[in-house]
Amino acid sequence: MQTLKVELANRSYPIHIGRHLLSDASLILPHLKRKHVAIVTNTTVAPLYLDQLSSSLKAEGVTVIQIILPDGEAYKNSETLNIIYDALLQNRCERSTTLIALGGGVIGDLTGYAAATYLRGVPFIQVPTTLLSQVDSSVGGKTGINHPLGKNMIGAFYQPQLVLADIDTLQTLPPREFSAGVAEVIKYGLIRDADFFDWLETNMTSLMQLDEQVLSYAIYHSCQNKADVVAKDEHEQGERALLNLGHTFGHAIENAMGYGVWLHGEAVAAGTVMAADLSQRMGWLSDHDVTRIKSSFEGANLPIKPPSLGVEKYLDLMSLDKKVENGKIRLILQQGIGKSVITSDYDAEKLKETLAV
Amino acid sequence: MQTLKVELANRSYPIHIGRHLLSDASLILPHLKRKHVAIVTNTTVAPLYLDQLSSSLKAEGVTVIQIILPDGEAYKNSETLNIIYDALLQNRCERSTTLIALGGGVIGDLTGYAAATYLRGVPFIQVPTTLLSQVDSSVGGKTGINHPLGKNMIGAFYQPQLVLADIDTLQTLPPREFSAGVAEVIKYGLIRDADFFDWLETNMTSLMQLDEQVLSYAIYHSCQNKADVVAKDEHEQGERALLNLGHTFGHAIENAMGYGVWLHGEAVAAGTVMAADLSQRMGWLSDHDVTRIKSSFEGANLPIKPPSLGVEKYLDLMSLDKKVENGKIRLILQQGIGKSVITSDYDAEKLKETLAV
Repeated sequence: MQTLKVELANRSYPIHIGRHLLSDASLILPHLKRKHVAIVTNTTVAPLYLDQLSSSLKAEGVTVIQIILPDGEAYKNSETLNIIYDALLQNRCERSTTLIALGGGVIGDLTGYAAATYLRGVPFIQVPTTLLSQVDSSVGGKTGINHPLGKNMIGAFYQPQLVLADIDTLQTLPPREFSAGVAEVIKYGLIRDADFFDWLETNMTSLMQLDEQVLSYAIYHSCQNKADVVAKDEHEQGERALLNLGHTFGHAIENAMGYGVWLHGEAVAAGTVMAADLSQRMGWLSDHDVTRIKSSFEGANLPIKPPSLGVEKYLDLMSLDKKVENGKIRLILQQGIGKSVITSDYDAEKLKETLAV
Repeated sequence: MQTLKVELANRSYPIHIGRHLLSDASLILPHLKRKHVAIVTNTTVAPLYLDQLSSSLKAEGVTVIQIILPDGEAYKNSETLNIIYDALLQNRCERSTTLIALGGGVIGDLTGYAAATYLRGVPFIQVPTTLLSQVDSSVGGKTGINHPLGKNMIGAFYQPQLVLADIDTLQTLPPREFSAGVAEVIKYGLIRDADFFDWLETNMTSLMQLDEQVLSYAIYHSCQNKADVVAKDEHEQGERALLNLGHTFGHAIENAMGYGVWLHGEAVAAGTVMAADLSQRMGWLSDHDVTRIKSSFEGANLPIKPPSLGVEKYLDLMSLDKKVENGKIRLILQQGIGKSVITSDYDAEKLKETLAV
């Protein structure tokens, strides 16, 4: 097991990465205020891992409440959130009850947001079971739900007590979802870690085969990059926005196609290619680097061609982005591999060319 | 105008108390990140004060979006919250948009919670127009909504940028609501300020007549007490819980009778008398002090006799309280005028005697 720490003063917390973590209650017990937890998971993950986690906690005398939600991005909304609230209240959960998110990004975001807002805040623990949530969404405290008019529009910054990334759970992850997670792994290389990008180019085949050493290295270095950024800029006043590379385009794709039709990581991959395309049109990125970026996504079986929505539709949906300032869409663009910038200083006409796919 | 400050490091903020503040945009302008605000108010307050506040801001070039909600505690729920979110999204409000709560405690709690969660947090300003919100709910950052199973069960600690308490607005406040606010004023005397309680006994008649000097003094000293407590214990880990004197009983009354049937302050008054009754049964409070407490509420035309719900119903509803720990109801009780304690160390049988009203 490897451990790293997200440094946030009195809200710092560890991330454990390794095998057999789900059945090791001793990793969780020191973080409980009281031996009383509510595990939130979904109908897909529950049959696979809920009993393993529950049993290990119950064996240590922990009372475990189970909340099983429908699976999918389409359920990341206020109705599903209310299912959690109702269950917590019906079971008389208190401020000392710890919520445990067992699942992917949707479960983590929903559970974290429920924890941020139930009784004005209760502790929670992330147990991510997908690659995407292990390398990205479970770390850093972004929680929230979608609104019919936009993704992640409602939420809170709320840090967990602990993240447990058990790589054994990736064995049951559908290949398409594994690929979607790799999109965020590649992202870290592109925005701030050229060496990691080089390493990924070399090791992509082994990563896609779930080679244990390669997988651990990829997850550890992804979390390390994420933790560094979050420690410097928890509330996204600056550098943290770079983590949204490809996301402004990607959110427009997800929203237009209907949440869950494109997986988040797929939309981010196509969106990152769009960001690279605009960067190249601006003269900031070489043809060679654009090709490297596309190849890395293709190596992970990710889409590099965005859907043809029409320029106006793209602009309209992108203007909903949380990074919009004074009506101007700010974008994360590339100035080389390993160097992203957030800027509104791009040519609006060239953006339209990029969007005219 | 008098000003005091809530000291919370980089989240400190001023409270201005005085006359003619609503039409003085210069008090608000320095707190805006951008000249773009959304004023949230209700159908009762809008015809009285919305134009005054909007006009003064528009005259300074501020874009003003108006969101008018139905009036009443019964609307402090997720449906009404969604009305705010929808309006913010439809009007493309950004992270630099400031929400302004213009109204009483319900508007302040709803707007503050919307601000805490829209785009994971946008700035907000409290402009309380009732006595209760001026002396209590607008200060300290407690925001939230009710759940069918309990009051304020969903929420966040989220501090405003500024509180503007314009005492002119109290001229249009129905007498019953004014009285409800006085319940919280009396509370500050009871929990931590015996001199203030003495002063209130002497000046209650003038206060009820809205004498300007007396009113200002009462609001200023209430806010000062609240600000002191919040600065020491923002997230209610300890002393802040004392501000809930009478509230565990009171919330049970509000919940049982249906939100809005008893006003919050009325339920707090009757609940505080119940807390005094139990304190006296425990031998912690003299008969004389119980009489003084009852007289002060009566002087403010507040109810001192709680409804007869039955002991079991009371216990059941009180066990929903956020202060419950390991299943035990913790209560705020009196050890004299000006001295409250939070304790689970009371005689359960005596509590039942108190509840058998």
